[in-house]
Amino acid sequence: HTRVCVCHHTVYIGVHVPKSYRRRRRHRRRANHKEKRERVAESVSDRSDAENADEPFPSILKPLNTPAAERIRFILGEEDSGPSLPQLFTELDELLYVDGQEMEWKETARWIKFEETVEAGGERWSKPHVATLALHSLFELKTCIEKGTIMLDMEANSLQQIVEMITDTQIETGLLKADLKDKVMYTLLRKHRHQTKKSNLRSLADIGKTMSSASKLFSNQENGSPATAHRDLMSSSLNDLSDKPEKDQLNNKFMKKIPRDAEASNVLVGEVDFLDSPLVVFVRLQQAVMLGALTEVPVPTRFLFVLLGPKGKARSYHEIGRAIATLMSDEVFHDIAYKAKSRSDLVAGIEEFLDEVIVLPPGEWDPDIRIEPPKSLPSADKRYTPTQGNRENTIFQPYRGGGGGHVVGDELKKTGRFCGGLIQDVKRKLPFFLSDFYDAFNIQSLSAILFIYLGTVTNAITFGGLLGDATENMQGVLESFLGTALSGAVFCLFAGQPLTILSSTGPVLVFERLLFNFSKDNDFDYLEFRLWIGLWSAFLCLVLVATDASVLVQYFTRFTEEGFSALISFIFIYDAFKKMLKLAHHYPIKSHYNPNLITTYSCYCSPPEGECECRHWNATWSSMTRSECLEWGGVLKGDACHFVPDITLMSFILFLGTYTCSMALKKFKTSRFFPTKVRKMISDFAIILAILIFCGVDALVRVDTPKLLVPSEFKPTSPERGWFVPPFGGNPWWVYLAALLPALLVTILIFMDQQITAVIINRKEHKLKKGAGYHLDLFWVAILMIVCSFMALPWYVAATVISIAHIDSLKMETETSAPGEQPKFLGVREQRVTGVIVFLLTGLSVFMAPILKYIPMPVLYGVFLYMGVASLNGVQFMDRLELLLMPAKHQPDLIYLRHVPLRRIHLFTFIQVLCLALLWILKSTVAAIIFPVMILALVALRKAMDYVFSQHDLSYLDDVMPEKDKKKKEDEKTKKKKKESIDSDINHSDYPGNENIPSIKISMDMLEQEPMLRENPSESE
Amino acid sequence: HTRVCVCHHTVYIGVHVPKSYRRRRRHRRRANHKEKRERVAESVSDRSDAENADEPFPSILKPLNTPAAERIRFILGEEDSGPSLPQLFTELDELLYVDGQEMEWKETARWIKFEETVEAGGERWSKPHVATLALHSLFELKTCIEKGTIMLDMEANSLQQIVEMITDTQIETGLLKADLKDKVMYTLLRKHRHQTKKSNLRSLADIGKTMSSASKLFSNQENGSPATAHRDLMSSSLNDLSDKPEKDQLNNKFMKKIPRDAEASNVLVGEVDFLDSPLVVFVRLQQAVMLGALTEVPVPTRFLFVLLGPKGKARSYHEIGRAIATLMSDEVFHDIAYKAKSRSDLVAGIEEFLDEVIVLPPGEWDPDIRIEPPKSLPSADKRYTPTQGNRENTIFQPYRGGGGGHVVGDELKKTGRFCGGLIQDVKRKLPFFLSDFYDAFNIQSLSAILFIYLGTVTNAITFGGLLGDATENMQGVLESFLGTALSGAVFCLFAGQPLTILSSTGPVLVFERLLFNFSKDNDFDYLEFRLWIGLWSAFLCLVLVATDASVLVQYFTRFTEEGFSALISFIFIYDAFKKMLKLAHHYPIKSHYNPNLITTYSCYCSPPEGECECRHWNATWSSMTRSECLEWGGVLKGDACHFVPDITLMSFILFLGTYTCSMALKKFKTSRFFPTKVRKMISDFAIILAILIFCGVDALVRVDTPKLLVPSEFKPTSPERGWFVPPFGGNPWWVYLAALLPALLVTILIFMDQQITAVIINRKEHKLKKGAGYHLDLFWVAILMIVCSFMALPWYVAATVISIAHIDSLKMETETSAPGEQPKFLGVREQRVTGVIVFLLTGLSVFMAPILKYIPMPVLYGVFLYMGVASLNGVQFMDRLELLLMPAKHQPDLIYLRHVPLRRIHLFTFIQVLCLALLWILKSTVAAIIFPVMILALVALRKAMDYVFSQHDLSYLDDVMPEKDKKKKEDEKTKKKKKESIDSDINHSDYPGNENIPSIKISMDMLEQEPMLRENPSESE
Repeated sequence: HTRVCVCHHTVYIGVHVPKSYRRRRRHRRRANHKEKRERVAESVSDRSDAENADEPFPSILKPLNTPAAERIRFILGEEDSGPSLPQLFTELDELLYVDGQEMEWKETARWIKFEETVEAGGERWSKPHVATLALHSLFELKTCIEKGTIMLDMEANSLQQIVEMITDTQIETGLLKADLKDKVMYTLLRKHRHQTKKSNLRSLADIGKTMSSASKLFSNQENGSPATAHRDLMSSSLNDLSDKPEKDQLNNKFMKKIPRDAEASNVLVGEVDFLDSPLVVFVRLQQAVMLGALTEVPVPTRFLFVLLGPKGKARSYHEIGRAIATLMSDEVFHDIAYKAKSRSDLVAGIEEFLDEVIVLPPGEWDPDIRIEPPKSLPSADKRYTPTQGNRENTIFQPYRGGGGGHVVGDELKKTGRFCGGLIQDVKRKLPFFLSDFYDAFNIQSLSAILFIYLGTVTNAITFGGLLGDATENMQGVLESFLGTALSGAVFCLFAGQPLTILSSTGPVLVFERLLFNFSKDNDFDYLEFRLWIGLWSAFLCLVLVATDASVLVQYFTRFTEEGFSALISFIFIYDAFKKMLKLAHHYPIKSHYNPNLITTYSCYCSPPEGECECRHWNATWSSMTRSECLEWGGVLKGDACHFVPDITLMSFILFLGTYTCSMALKKFKTSRFFPTKVRKMISDFAIILAILIFCGVDALVRVDTPKLLVPSEFKPTSPERGWFVPPFGGNPWWVYLAALLPALLVTILIFMDQQITAVIINRKEHKLKKGAGYHLDLFWVAILMIVCSFMALPWYVAATVISIAHIDSLKMETETSAPGEQPKFLGVREQRVTGVIVFLLTGLSVFMAPILKYIPMPVLYGVFLYMGVASLNGVQFMDRLELLLMPAKHQPDLIYLRHVPLRRIHLFTFIQVLCLALLWILKSTVAAIIFPVMILALVALRKAMDYVFSQHDLSYLDDVMPEKDKKKKEDEKTKKKKKESIDSDINHSDYPGNENIPSIKISMDMLEQEPMLRENPSESE
Repeated sequence: HTRVCVCHHTVYIGVHVPKSYRRRRRHRRRANHKEKRERVAESVSDRSDAENADEPFPSILKPLNTPAAERIRFILGEEDSGPSLPQLFTELDELLYVDGQEMEWKETARWIKFEETVEAGGERWSKPHVATLALHSLFELKTCIEKGTIMLDMEANSLQQIVEMITDTQIETGLLKADLKDKVMYTLLRKHRHQTKKSNLRSLADIGKTMSSASKLFSNQENGSPATAHRDLMSSSLNDLSDKPEKDQLNNKFMKKIPRDAEASNVLVGEVDFLDSPLVVFVRLQQAVMLGALTEVPVPTRFLFVLLGPKGKARSYHEIGRAIATLMSDEVFHDIAYKAKSRSDLVAGIEEFLDEVIVLPPGEWDPDIRIEPPKSLPSADKRYTPTQGNRENTIFQPYRGGGGGHVVGDELKKTGRFCGGLIQDVKRKLPFFLSDFYDAFNIQSLSAILFIYLGTVTNAITFGGLLGDATENMQGVLESFLGTALSGAVFCLFAGQPLTILSSTGPVLVFERLLFNFSKDNDFDYLEFRLWIGLWSAFLCLVLVATDASVLVQYFTRFTEEGFSALISFIFIYDAFKKMLKLAHHYPIKSHYNPNLITTYSCYCSPPEGECECRHWNATWSSMTRSECLEWGGVLKGDACHFVPDITLMSFILFLGTYTCSMALKKFKTSRFFPTKVRKMISDFAIILAILIFCGVDALVRVDTPKLLVPSEFKPTSPERGWFVPPFGGNPWWVYLAALLPALLVTILIFMDQQITAVIINRKEHKLKKGAGYHLDLFWVAILMIVCSFMALPWYVAATVISIAHIDSLKMETETSAPGEQPKFLGVREQRVTGVIVFLLTGLSVFMAPILKYIPMPVLYGVFLYMGVASLNGVQFMDRLELLLMPAKHQPDLIYLRHVPLRRIHLFTFIQVLCLALLWILKSTVAAIIFPVMILALVALRKAMDYVFSQHDLSYLDDVMPEKDKKKKEDEKTKKKKKESIDSDINHSDYPGNENIPSIKISMDMLEQEPMLRENPSESE
């Protein structure tokens, strides 16, 4: 007999062929669309051929199609016809004996997508988990479907009716003895008990009850005891089955997890003593019907699976129940169940399910482990249709794998027309203009506004102070505030990418410093000279806009972007510490202070040497404060003069505290405490909370730490200037022309600074939906430059770190629907409101001085540090830096580690580090002014790296450069083309754009790892 | 045909029966041992019966045994006869075409326990992962074994010979055409390329190479290109297959992961163009033979699986290769493979494997996710033998689930003889005495010594200071040091549990304070009175030892233990902060310090009022230091007098810094950076490192923070006393007798403090192997008490927190063997050396004052804080407290949450919190002296809770109390007995004693969750 069995299996397996082949075949078949039906027939005949064949390994020899897969595709139809099918809520109820006689149905598990089990002892729902099944329970289920009663499209509208029809059919077909009808009906109409949340009153009652039931040892006893009966009396509403939804059902909070149009599928399994052979019924109703308290939630029932069997096999029935419930929650079988026309359709559905099943070896996995739902799931599409060749995807995946680059879409296509890009930008953005305002209505916006506002104000003060220092107050803090507010607000209101935050930047500051010194040395009128440079620059920028020069940003690949943003982040971090050290230097700590010698520590003001040291003089001098003393030329004498107690240490506490607290609160989102909403709120407002906490600490300790001081009067910092710079009169005429030269430099500077940040903001991984507007952005920067030049305000370009912080604070995720499903990153709240309000607030800060003066500067430096560190998050460059310190076996399962040799990755990282080090050195010297030019050099270097690294490696580590020399790389290009067409095909799939995927999330087809497939040219097509 | 097929599957399934039933049947069968062979035959006939039966659901009806499982048990034999089989290293090599013509075998995956794959692109090994297989590849493999050539116990000693025999057999059986022999042999003898680490030289060569291969787009191209050929030339040693291990093999670092006696199983799969039908051979050699460079590591080959097939199905072959490799690494199939006598044995092995396989539904899991190896694996024992009824385990598991309690073993059995327990303790511990010394040789001991030493010294100083304060220096810091060193060293040298650290404790301190005041009020000689109390107490303790009173510790359940240790931990944490606040109070900060007013801040000493304020007097006064001034009765005047700059803030920085740094470094073990050894070292020395770092910070900032000052002279603190207290003469005679009354209190105090800590130390979850010694411990405490009383040193008992820290710092884990296997907690390094050295160092600290004075006190307070927080780790009570703040759906999958309703858990927690709050209040008042008595009250309360909670719930939340009133709970007891017998059975299994298991680790049989099973009495047996 074994022989026959084996042969049989062979046949079964003979039709199981590795997916890739099957799929490729399907792919080919797609072309010959009409042949479909014939093909199916053919494949069936193929199959019998295989069966009759005498060849020893038909399975390995003939790449046949899986008949089950063919069949289900036939059942479901190639095109999606008709409305989409409703989602299913599946509930498993098992027969429970109360007091050993009375029966009731108890809900023991439920499914929307993943399984949730009732913890009998814990009286609670388990976490959603992947339903791990035993192979034999699936086979048993198949037998059940094959042998049981299948009733499709039954017309009934009450459970009574359904049960009657079931029993009648069973008796008709001889599967049930007629005298058992009443018993079966009685059993099936028993009341249903669901696992729902208990009220506090009930809990109290329970506690009282257990007081007297201390003698009961096992919960099994307890559960089947009068206690349970008592509990049931309380929930009297479940005593009979009416067809209207019960109060309990309607109040069920779980309802909100179920989609609106959902229908229920009820699985009833149980053992009874009156049956000798199992009774299996699968019912699909013509119309979904509300069957009263049958289901936990008030959802109409469409499917009913009943398995009643003889005593002693409850565990087996339970597993079969789980198997059918898992099948019902499977996307493909769900559709089959809805569309099946016969028993064999259902069997084919099970077979197809078995084809796709994943098997874990028993020695390597404990079946009792509840597997948490994965972060991302494979799409079931490939199981429906053979259209999308999985194989091709795989081969070309590298190019997607590198992913996350900016979209080379419409935005960056050269139009060839005058201002073509600008016009297109306006056309693209205009339809969104209104939504740019109402999209902002969310609490998240408030947190973003506060966070970014504080960043902007701090930045304005810092740069204002530095500018004032560099230009002898020709531009000072007030100008900085005014300029930031004006430029930022206008930009956010009209620019192409309102998520960008404008700010003063380092290179501009250096330029101003040099310019001021140059003007001073040559007796030029600084402001007028600057005005002309600004005008020329703006003109050049407008020329760049008109000629669509922004398309050049395509050359900013991940290498350049990450290098730039990492550098800026490092500068933020470095600056935060530098400022703290400066502060420490300003408030020196007295070392080896001895409290015992307090009487000897003093500081007094003594008159300058040579002056009369008469007595009354002395008295006057000694009563002077430090500043008075110094003003009058006195000398401060004494140990204590050069030290300031507490302030430095307090500042460090505030600085590190704010940083640590922000970090901790931000991470609170992933903690287990408190409901999700509270955690999200805390996480969103992390920085604001941290600032408030440490302002509180500062106020509590009452040490005079340096505070945020904003100018409170609205007038130019320098009395020598007004609010308008006259364009003529200050300098000789040729200076107006000569200004073109520095203007060229400024233009490069502005263009690079602005566009590289724009590229980072517009990255694909941010999933922006309203498109970018590189030309429009630059246009507004140029316009604002003109205004600022005339008003003698600083020039503004996009600030990388603050803009990234802005994006981060506006990220949206789905509210999870099915239990166990991961929230998906939806995109960024794209709107203009947050930006505009931030800058309005910045402008109004001049009037908010009395409030802002309570914020200690070290707290803001802590925020700077946080911003710097946070913007390094998720940067692939940082991941690669970390790899340097990790032994290979501990490295995370990053996609590029699977495909690029480690030494190549390290080489790439090393080059990048070298570049950054060079840029850093450059930035620290006077040469900082050519910094933007060096970023161009970075692009060139990246281009040169094409000759060091293979395109394959680069595609994983970086984006691919746009090709120029067509001749040389013709073949590559054709391949790339192909890839692009596929890319656009799969653009809308859920493939994560971000590469920084946790190890378990990476979805890669094994094919790519197979060396032998590469050798086979016939395989490649 | 489908019909037949289905019927067939039915038969197949018919023999698949849920495990529990199968196992129970086996259990019964175990009794009738002799019937075994007949049974097997019977089961086979059963099977054909089932087949012929006309009943619709034979599968569900007849609980048959799985024939495969029966068969394999028959193959393997019931008893383990012969030597244990060697472990297997399995390697999958696939045929690769170089340049489209030349072939070679390339290693693509390997197995010891889990699968490791070669990342073709990354040229590296993947992380070990669970091998997820496709169901059909297993079926295909089965076909292969059924149809292919099986050659068992082949005698050959070179690959050449093996290959020749293979081809000859194939030709003989007509499976291979004779003219293909040469081609097959040629193919099988191609050289093998293994994935090994590359040298740096090679990497450089590669970099040079890629410089010129920039035009290659795909790695597939690159891999099959001259580049590869070039690489192969370099590894010329692989060009032919000699039978000696290659240099590459011997140098392979992977070797150390492979057990010494391991053998290899080589799986060779590939597609060739000359075959029309696949060639499958499974070879087992008579003797394992070294086949040269066939295997990655120099391990002799025992098994060889060859699959050569026609072109076009490489992926399928790859999957089959993975399937057989996974089977070979499966524990059970491994044994089958070694013991199989025929093809059908192997087929049965595959079938048994299929029986046990776990299935993941395709819609809920992405097959490309690499599943990380689970933390704990199910034992394969249940698959070998039907002896251990899994079902019974499950029912009684609750009692184990509560687990982690102290072992109620020999240590705590009442002997009934005089000093019986003590003698047994000595007998038990004596054989380990020598190993107690040489077991300490490990670097870990050094870190433990340093860590515990610092804790002990700090404790000695703190308590010394407090004692000196309480007793007017009759006992001071020096006595504290001497007493700690003496008692600790003696205890660690001779006691039953040398891991216990003795120290002064709070209750003792309170008692001393009260005693001193009482003596003073009544004009008693304090030291003499104390001596007599000590003597009485010691006598009482010795009586307790002689009467085996320590068996009462059985009543200290988890509830009491955790309550006590949590309380002590809270006190540690609270004390650390209290000390810091006290310090802050001692060094007040000047608020609103204005650097500008520095000249007005001063402090000068002025003569007391009424005294002459003459000029010269003034001068003298003003030159006095603070202490001189106060000594002479002067008055400190001025703003600055009452403030001390910097010290408080610096102290807080040091305090919080040390704590955070210790925590971070301790957690570093689980980080990804640096090799495991380095991380372990850093983690072991975390506290020492943190102390050093912050001593450095302190030294750098040079603020005069309070430092650790140990007495440097060896003489009693008070000049009024000597080193010996004469027992008579100081007090009237009746005082000697009256001392019995306070001695009673002290005895309870000592007993409770000592034994509860001992219970915590001896918890089962610490996996101590050398046993406990409660009687011996108490004996030594009593002896030391006599010594200390005579020398007027403080009394010492076990200190909970430091002892736990001691245990924690000595924990051992396995060095992982197979890649992917988790390190197991092995136990604690039980020895006497660390303790002895700690106390010797404590004694010598008197001479180390010059070094120790660099350690700031706040750093040590930080260590205290760390110890307090760390000892709360893994305490179930804390987990339950956390649950209060967690929404149910975010709660971790703790075992008791599955079995006890949440409200019961919360009630339990609430009672515990209430008890702790009461104890805390008690501890803070004078009533602290009855604190130990209150712990007795805790035990009583726990006893009372038997009436509020069911035993089922308590078994999960707590340990079960030893029963006393037999009458009332007779039935429970019988059940408990049963449980105990099972417990002892499974005592040696790997079941984690610690309950704090990460969610994915919990291994629970689903049975317990099944409500219906409880109702069926026939099931329960």
